[in-house]
Amino acid sequence: MTVTQTSEAAGAEPGDSTALRTDQYELTMVQAALRSGAAHRRCVFEVFARSLPAGRRYGVVAGTGRLLEGLARFRFTAEQLGWLDDRGIVDEPTLEFLRDYRFSGTITGYAEGEVYLPHSPVLRIESSFAEATLLETYMLSVLNHDSAVASAASRMTLAAVDRPCVEMGSRRTQEASATAAARAAMIAGFSGTSNLEAGRRWDVATLGTAAHAFTLLHDSEQEAFATQVEAFGPSTSLLVDTYDVAAGVRRAVEAAGAELGAVRLDSGDLVEQAHEVRRLLDELGNTSTRIIVTSDLDEYAIARLQSAPVDSYGVGTQLVTGSGAPTASMVYKLVERTDADGAAVPVAKTAVGKRSVGGVKHPLRTYGADGSATSELIGVGGAPDPEGRAVRELMVPLVVDGEIRAEHTGAAGVEAARERHRASVDELPTAAHRLQDGEPVLPTVFD
Amino acid sequence: MTVTQTSEAAGAEPGDSTALRTDQYELTMVQAALRSGAAHRRCVFEVFARSLPAGRRYGVVAGTGRLLEGLARFRFTAEQLGWLDDRGIVDEPTLEFLRDYRFSGTITGYAEGEVYLPHSPVLRIESSFAEATLLETYMLSVLNHDSAVASAASRMTLAAVDRPCVEMGSRRTQEASATAAARAAMIAGFSGTSNLEAGRRWDVATLGTAAHAFTLLHDSEQEAFATQVEAFGPSTSLLVDTYDVAAGVRRAVEAAGAELGAVRLDSGDLVEQAHEVRRLLDELGNTSTRIIVTSDLDEYAIARLQSAPVDSYGVGTQLVTGSGAPTASMVYKLVERTDADGAAVPVAKTAVGKRSVGGVKHPLRTYGADGSATSELIGVGGAPDPEGRAVRELMVPLVVDGEIRAEHTGAAGVEAARERHRASVDELPTAAHRLQDGEPVLPTVFD
Repeated sequence: MTVTQTSEAAGAEPGDSTALRTDQYELTMVQAALRSGAAHRRCVFEVFARSLPAGRRYGVVAGTGRLLEGLARFRFTAEQLGWLDDRGIVDEPTLEFLRDYRFSGTITGYAEGEVYLPHSPVLRIESSFAEATLLETYMLSVLNHDSAVASAASRMTLAAVDRPCVEMGSRRTQEASATAAARAAMIAGFSGTSNLEAGRRWDVATLGTAAHAFTLLHDSEQEAFATQVEAFGPSTSLLVDTYDVAAGVRRAVEAAGAELGAVRLDSGDLVEQAHEVRRLLDELGNTSTRIIVTSDLDEYAIARLQSAPVDSYGVGTQLVTGSGAPTASMVYKLVERTDADGAAVPVAKTAVGKRSVGGVKHPLRTYGADGSATSELIGVGGAPDPEGRAVRELMVPLVVDGEIRAEHTGAAGVEAARERHRASVDELPTAAHRLQDGEPVLPTVFD
Repeated sequence: MTVTQTSEAAGAEPGDSTALRTDQYELTMVQAALRSGAAHRRCVFEVFARSLPAGRRYGVVAGTGRLLEGLARFRFTAEQLGWLDDRGIVDEPTLEFLRDYRFSGTITGYAEGEVYLPHSPVLRIESSFAEATLLETYMLSVLNHDSAVASAASRMTLAAVDRPCVEMGSRRTQEASATAAARAAMIAGFSGTSNLEAGRRWDVATLGTAAHAFTLLHDSEQEAFATQVEAFGPSTSLLVDTYDVAAGVRRAVEAAGAELGAVRLDSGDLVEQAHEVRRLLDELGNTSTRIIVTSDLDEYAIARLQSAPVDSYGVGTQLVTGSGAPTASMVYKLVERTDADGAAVPVAKTAVGKRSVGGVKHPLRTYGADGSATSELIGVGGAPDPEGRAVRELMVPLVVDGEIRAEHTGAAGVEAARERHRASVDELPTAAHRLQDGEPVLPTVFD
């Protein structure tokens, strides 16, 4: 799998250029700046969120690996250039610049899976103005979507404690977002996904058995269950709530016997049903048959179900829509550029609203004596002073002089991000586990 | 453009198979049903939403054209089949079925751009169980996303009355969703988009000029504006809120003169600023320079800004995230199938929760004496009786015996959907224009 992914990341899918996944103004700014010569000024852009979604305690960076996979395919094809020319969107010198475009700069950032707070500089792009500007929209699209899903997913896996969560939301979001959402969920601790394309691309666990339509297709529930057990063996999961739940459970046990893997409940009062179904399964001797619930779950419903005899959670809509926060609101801001003499100048918008801090940010996470994280410490224009506290570096190299660090991409990248997520969340103060609205779990301190 | 689209829709992009944009259980259900023989039973599936998002008055069907374009690419490639085999997801007879898979059935549905209500049967799929089941997840992904965006966009264009709305939300949603969202917004009356890929695919108007970074890149705002005017002429739009808005407006007029096309405001109190900027522009003699506002707008903000001297609205985050309703919650349900003797049997889930109505639905929109729509009248198992009222047929053929009706795809499909949206919304009672929460604007009546 990893080998295939690497070759895809290197541009093997000809139909899949990412270069027009962008706003027109990125290209027109390049045209104007090429004319003034400012296009070649060295720049530093940073990606950060001014705030977390209302009430959230922390965010989870996701999309980094996907972003790098897509960066390798950020090439303007002859057909795309022809269209830009026909439409008159940019002029000939700009088309020439786009034709040869390869990002040759350096990108540093938070490792995928890392926890972020307001103003955490999750990505730093260093290159000419033109090279960095072209990437703005695409990079924000990937990070804003994937981080929104991973941040919601992380709350769900924390709420589920050691019960597995399975991603099943593909049908509730755009078809390509579905694949990206499955990947983000896996990074934030989900144990599998129903999305096959995510399985194929990043070698993550996929699962799924049958829907109500399968039962309704057959002349009776008995026949449907018998057919499924014949096809997949008794360890399959049978969906028992098409007609009558108690009768469904009895028929499932009749069809599969003591080896029945699981029953799935997809409607009604899940707490009450889980108790009834557990009692019935135990009565019938199926003490090891698991119960999977899958109806409109979010982190709050999962928390409520923790006291019920449920073995795993299938999460759909609320996962892929970020559980109320479908975008992470990250922005991509110019914070430093050279002047006509080549000297670096920190810059920032200063008019009313949407202000930001000029200068390059250097983040550290600080730790208390008990080993738990205490703050996001950010130096501006240089490293901050940790004043004797234990600290951890947060920035890692992602692209160095145009070379993409392959370890962040493909299946290996997802696995590393899962580990980073687990380790970073484990370090957080216990308030991170609270689902009720509150302040970010770590303060962001500018040094 | 249309010619290119047709060739793409016919499968010219080899990297772009849609067949794994699906949940695993669609394939495992096919495997089990192939074994029992039920896979070949003739089925009717319907797509509908049980309800609109809370408080919404109507929904807008979108995604139909994209769905048909993707249906033409719903082919299992050798690589995908190899992966399914390696993973052991399905058995050899199923792989063989998938290898030859071409949808050969018939799909009828609401025309793209049409208004829908709770239980409107927006799509009807008639084929064997196996053929229809494989499409479930993919079709719902497309319709749920695109309809959510179009439904939000429609409220925005209604609130803006005759002021143009421009879609600028690409960076706030996944990169492929961004392109789909731009298309959905155009269907619901937006006048342009910043998303270049949407422009290329469906020949819609694209626009955009410059961001704050462009101003910050230069040594002064004067220099930035002069550069932009040199590159794009005085009719360009200048972003005037990087430093001081009033000074920015003066510099913009100095740089471009009386011909200055527009100034853009992207932060602060937009109502107050719009008034000040209009006064200042008029004072400077730039009475025809337009004012574009673009900061975190939604339909409510647009309604508030209607009294301010604003010429057009750039809408981002709230558009691409469905303005609080990021998915349309449509479901894909088996409503009729043949039995062992080939006789049609209506079917429906009957356990607690998520009930639906079995049998094939036949919708009509009814009209009052004043020509405005009065209800969504649905017959079950046959045409409803309009009882003398004026009615309109809502179902149109989309795929007939496997042949995709090309007029719904590509640029022509988007243009037709824009017209359908305009006509359908114009027929609604005036309550459709109310932004406050309320009941659906038309009652759904089962006959």
